[in-house]
Amino acid sequence: MADATRDIENLIELMAKLPGLGPRSARRAVLHMIKKRGLLMTPLADAMHIVAATARECLNCGNIGTSDVCDICTSEKRATGELCVVEDVADLWAMERGASFAGRYHVLGGTLSALDSMGPDELRIPKLVDRVKTEGITEVILALNATVDGQTTAHYIAEQLEGLGVSVTSLAQGVPIGGELDYLDDGTITAALRARKSF
Amino acid sequence: MADATRDIENLIELMAKLPGLGPRSARRAVLHMIKKRGLLMTPLADAMHIVAATARECLNCGNIGTSDVCDICTSEKRATGELCVVEDVADLWAMERGASFAGRYHVLGGTLSALDSMGPDELRIPKLVDRVKTEGITEVILALNATVDGQTTAHYIAEQLEGLGVSVTSLAQGVPIGGELDYLDDGTITAALRARKSF
Repeated sequence: MADATRDIENLIELMAKLPGLGPRSARRAVLHMIKKRGLLMTPLADAMHIVAATARECLNCGNIGTSDVCDICTSEKRATGELCVVEDVADLWAMERGASFAGRYHVLGGTLSALDSMGPDELRIPKLVDRVKTEGITEVILALNATVDGQTTAHYIAEQLEGLGVSVTSLAQGVPIGGELDYLDDGTITAALRARKSF
Repeated sequence: MADATRDIENLIELMAKLPGLGPRSARRAVLHMIKKRGLLMTPLADAMHIVAATARECLNCGNIGTSDVCDICTSEKRATGELCVVEDVADLWAMERGASFAGRYHVLGGTLSALDSMGPDELRIPKLVDRVKTEGITEVILALNATVDGQTTAHYIAEQLEGLGVSVTSLAQGVPIGGELDYLDDGTITAALRARKSF
């Protein structure tokens, strides 16, 4: 087996480092790629090299793009005065797929967490305060996950923004579209009941 | 967003073609890679290029290696007269991890299936018959999956090998090591009971 297996084992080990793939599924993925090496493996490797060479974090908002400042931050159309704060680039992409937000974003890169020693500085919160002061922001929308850490972070950010003259809002909590009450947790039902609106 | 997003979207689409990854987990994997582009993405792309350039199927047994005939087929030590028939290279690897089989393999590349129009020729069964005749094989071990298609294929192969003077065996069926009866299906329990042995 010698070299062949060493190269393949090396590839499997690297693939297993991706989130969502364990050793077993990495092996399955590698075998699949080897079978389709011309159609899938080589194009995939090429695509990775291109993205690895060009992708970088926006110095302003933390989004991923190819320039130092991303296209959303440079687009004049997105200067609506609304700034949406998200935990991660994946959340920014999720908001963009919704295509209902026209403003700009600020990616924290995580949540406050004593356990993971994530403080305000690791989270680009000072940069957020800067941007609110200098970019003519009128509303900061906290689109953080509805987890304990997410909500703790939201409260901390709201405190930091006090006195800066911006309104701070957060996403509504309630029954998801298509959701069935029977399958919802109690917390969501309670939140939806508290925030009920006239029909 | 323009080019950056197009390259990244392209990479996500390619990743989503891997077994076990959907569009959502592919996106998560790509974001993870972008964050670790130096440590993970570039080495991964390099490893893929190496494997894509060197890996090929063994002309004799169907295993994956770097030469036309794989190391197991060329190793004199593995010429024990035992030939283990498996559906897929993944199964061969699983057998090798067990490290209890010292003979050679024959990879079918699937199972007989009228639905997928997989006939004996697609499955390298003629090649198997050839090898049994010419490689001094004394025992053919059918290590096919315990599925309907796997067992159909096993029966077909056993028929083809009749009269060639080799013994044809199959893996034992029973309770897996560490298995709990309560979680086993009825078929396994029935098979294990039928094949019971004295304690």
